[in-house]
Amino acid sequence: MVKKEKKEVKKIKSEKVTFNIDKNSNFSEWFSEIIKTAELADLRYNVKGCIVFQPWSVLSMEKMYRYYEKALQKKGHKPYWFPTLIPEKNFRIESAHVSKFNPEVFWVTHGGEDKLEEKYALRPTSETAFYQMFALWLSSYKDLPFKTYQRANVFRYDTKATRPFLRSREFYWIETHCAHATEEDAMKQVKEDMETTKEVMHGIFCLPFMFFERPIWDKFGGAERTFAADVLNPDGKLVQQPSTHLINLDFSKGFNVKFKDKDEKEKYARMTCYGPAMSRIFASVITVHGDNKGLKFPWKIAPVQVIIIPITNDEKLIKKSEELKEILEEKDIDADIDKSDKRPGEKFYFWEMKGVPLRIELGKKELEAKELTVFRRDLQTKEKVRENNLISYIEKTSKDYDSNLIKNSDNLFKGRIVDAKSKNEITKALDDGKIARCSFCSVEKEGIKCAEIVEKDINAEVRGTKLDEKEKPKGKCAVCGKKADAIVYIGRAY
Amino acid sequence: MVKKEKKEVKKIKSEKVTFNIDKNSNFSEWFSEIIKTAELADLRYNVKGCIVFQPWSVLSMEKMYRYYEKALQKKGHKPYWFPTLIPEKNFRIESAHVSKFNPEVFWVTHGGEDKLEEKYALRPTSETAFYQMFALWLSSYKDLPFKTYQRANVFRYDTKATRPFLRSREFYWIETHCAHATEEDAMKQVKEDMETTKEVMHGIFCLPFMFFERPIWDKFGGAERTFAADVLNPDGKLVQQPSTHLINLDFSKGFNVKFKDKDEKEKYARMTCYGPAMSRIFASVITVHGDNKGLKFPWKIAPVQVIIIPITNDEKLIKKSEELKEILEEKDIDADIDKSDKRPGEKFYFWEMKGVPLRIELGKKELEAKELTVFRRDLQTKEKVRENNLISYIEKTSKDYDSNLIKNSDNLFKGRIVDAKSKNEITKALDDGKIARCSFCSVEKEGIKCAEIVEKDINAEVRGTKLDEKEKPKGKCAVCGKKADAIVYIGRAY
Repeated sequence: MVKKEKKEVKKIKSEKVTFNIDKNSNFSEWFSEIIKTAELADLRYNVKGCIVFQPWSVLSMEKMYRYYEKALQKKGHKPYWFPTLIPEKNFRIESAHVSKFNPEVFWVTHGGEDKLEEKYALRPTSETAFYQMFALWLSSYKDLPFKTYQRANVFRYDTKATRPFLRSREFYWIETHCAHATEEDAMKQVKEDMETTKEVMHGIFCLPFMFFERPIWDKFGGAERTFAADVLNPDGKLVQQPSTHLINLDFSKGFNVKFKDKDEKEKYARMTCYGPAMSRIFASVITVHGDNKGLKFPWKIAPVQVIIIPITNDEKLIKKSEELKEILEEKDIDADIDKSDKRPGEKFYFWEMKGVPLRIELGKKELEAKELTVFRRDLQTKEKVRENNLISYIEKTSKDYDSNLIKNSDNLFKGRIVDAKSKNEITKALDDGKIARCSFCSVEKEGIKCAEIVEKDINAEVRGTKLDEKEKPKGKCAVCGKKADAIVYIGRAY
Repeated sequence: MVKKEKKEVKKIKSEKVTFNIDKNSNFSEWFSEIIKTAELADLRYNVKGCIVFQPWSVLSMEKMYRYYEKALQKKGHKPYWFPTLIPEKNFRIESAHVSKFNPEVFWVTHGGEDKLEEKYALRPTSETAFYQMFALWLSSYKDLPFKTYQRANVFRYDTKATRPFLRSREFYWIETHCAHATEEDAMKQVKEDMETTKEVMHGIFCLPFMFFERPIWDKFGGAERTFAADVLNPDGKLVQQPSTHLINLDFSKGFNVKFKDKDEKEKYARMTCYGPAMSRIFASVITVHGDNKGLKFPWKIAPVQVIIIPITNDEKLIKKSEELKEILEEKDIDADIDKSDKRPGEKFYFWEMKGVPLRIELGKKELEAKELTVFRRDLQTKEKVRENNLISYIEKTSKDYDSNLIKNSDNLFKGRIVDAKSKNEITKALDDGKIARCSFCSVEKEGIKCAEIVEKDINAEVRGTKLDEKEKPKGKCAVCGKKADAIVYIGRAY
């Protein structure tokens, strides 16, 4: 029998009136407490590194999925559902992929009482599932570009410390897999993926990020080049968010993915893949936008966008609340009514903590005047709104609300990049919660020794070179003092 | 290296002009061929019983998920994402559950090179994951009813022959898990689940079914009572679709799920669960509605609802097609344009085979007259529609289209129930593609011997007793000739 832990554990249901933890000075506590108090996830599930996602995060992540999938479909990606199980022989085809992922694979070895003839990997990522089908599906240059994606749960027997949403042994993502005729086309896809990141991560989720090309020793297993968006956590650490990879030819050769080109010659297809992880992005959504009072959801992905609070449980107020909810839902605005027995003040704080963008307060005065009091979570301000102007008010305000979230979060990187000329200067920048920009040996193979020093002595990572700006090194490598070949960004990371 | 099978296998891309297989007389071929020709799934993935779901099925199943989730949320179910891995010790708690599912469980035993301390089951269903958390979450009668669900992929090492969509080793479903204060409340939930089945399966997916209470030997492992909707396949076999279960107390005791009732006494919660499987329902969607020309999607779950076919690739026609597509999409109608080089006739047949409800034909004549030709997949008829009436025409026609699908499919059960008084009569009914209704020993334990005879001699199953109609047995048990205690329905089933 599973031991009943109820007595030992802190009650998860929030009955606190206020949530009040300083997010910036006390990030770890803030993060743990908001996950519990807002009921985002329960960490007490008895498989290490696996958590139970609760309704308040699932509702938001489902919306995130929908925006991402819509953006991908618009760009011609078609949805697939591939099997979760990958035969060992597929998994072993590409050697760089194997050495990267082998230590992280969960293996299925038995079915019922039978030992399986071949063991299966629980997909850590699905290149080795998709590409064998690409080999069957593609035959001509006319089939290219071939653009796919799937919404999937993936599994990694991660040996690093797990953290809810940020790093767990099962997580939720989208993986796109595309085949192209030329490397040029493949690089166009990589750029399109970066555009998609911008469009969705910044435009919908209101998250700022920096794009880096990862150094060669930090690429995706089996890829030629890796590009990743780093989001800044309030504690100054970087979080890798969607990354896109020029896989190019390695897997195509292993899986024999060929097509007949215009010149009638058989050629190997060029591959790319892209992997936004919904559960990880959700971590940044809560850490970037949240404040000392709790969560603050971007409008489009708020589980509830408008909470209606009848000041008393008077029948007329409840009836009017229900009318309003219906009016809002007709316009596809997610609304809810708090009919609980709590005092109005408690209700206010509770829904602020939960991060609902707008709150409608409805008392007898409001009912008589046909005028509502609307509270904005971002500005903490109240406005009177004529009942029959409600929809147009919300349509306008929701846009303004998101702009305000973007404006605030865009400020996060401001003043956070510090030029550093030595290990000491790098360490100081990082200890101050900043990112160090410095001249560096190289982002090719040779730089790896300095990267190892950075990791060992400074507990930090070389995140790579910045994109779209040609930055030339000035002076010597900040780590070893030899000739510098690149400008890199160094940060601490999750 | 994975062997390139391209040469041996039939080309999957449909370039055939027509699809023409008699669905009723030749169901197996029809089913295999439509899956290939319409590109619903690729069966060549190299894990036995696992298939690759392709865009044309995924797009529809995503819509099916959305309608189902909406219906459940409306009734107060909250969404969760539970881990896929279930520790062996949880799985072993409820003995009836173990004996039912143990032979079907895939086991994860290794992570990387490490042998895991405890092996994990790939969830075949998630009672044993949910209930241990229920034990932590529930404490008072005020928490009840507690209504959850999750959208999930589940795994069964099924030893029966697998069949795409109908029975695979990984499939896609929703599972709801609820806790209640009393058995009466739990039975109310079971009835609500049946209402949901009716609302979504019949109202949205246009599928008719019969609800049976399964005999006691065919219950869900760990449940007290099992109720299931059987859909009729064109070949006369039954397909079990959503089933709902009164689990009641067995698991609550094992997992110690208690609450303090109004009378201050600690009591075990009463459980129910419900499991609509999207990939399996999709099988019925294609087999019930399809005809000799191919698929026929219900309006609301069609991957594409309106296909626009410019008769030539004339620039003006393409431009107008794009305008129309935009107008339709503004109204949330999924539209696409066939700009391929095929001849118009080929395009027509292709999209009929794909099951798109409406086709707009756009030639120069139509362009000049500002009048469109609209073809209906169900009636195979064409109508002229004024361009500026298009939206209202579609709104009206889409309703009529679904009503017509429902009307046709409701006829399926007509004349299919045959009274049978002996084994011979049962066999004859089943061989004629019908369902036998007969007097039977009992649906309690004692009937199992007759059920075994039915299985062995007639290759059929006792599907149970009909709901909501008190049917009293007349005469003796049709199988053994002893005193009858129930009226049961016997059919062949997938």
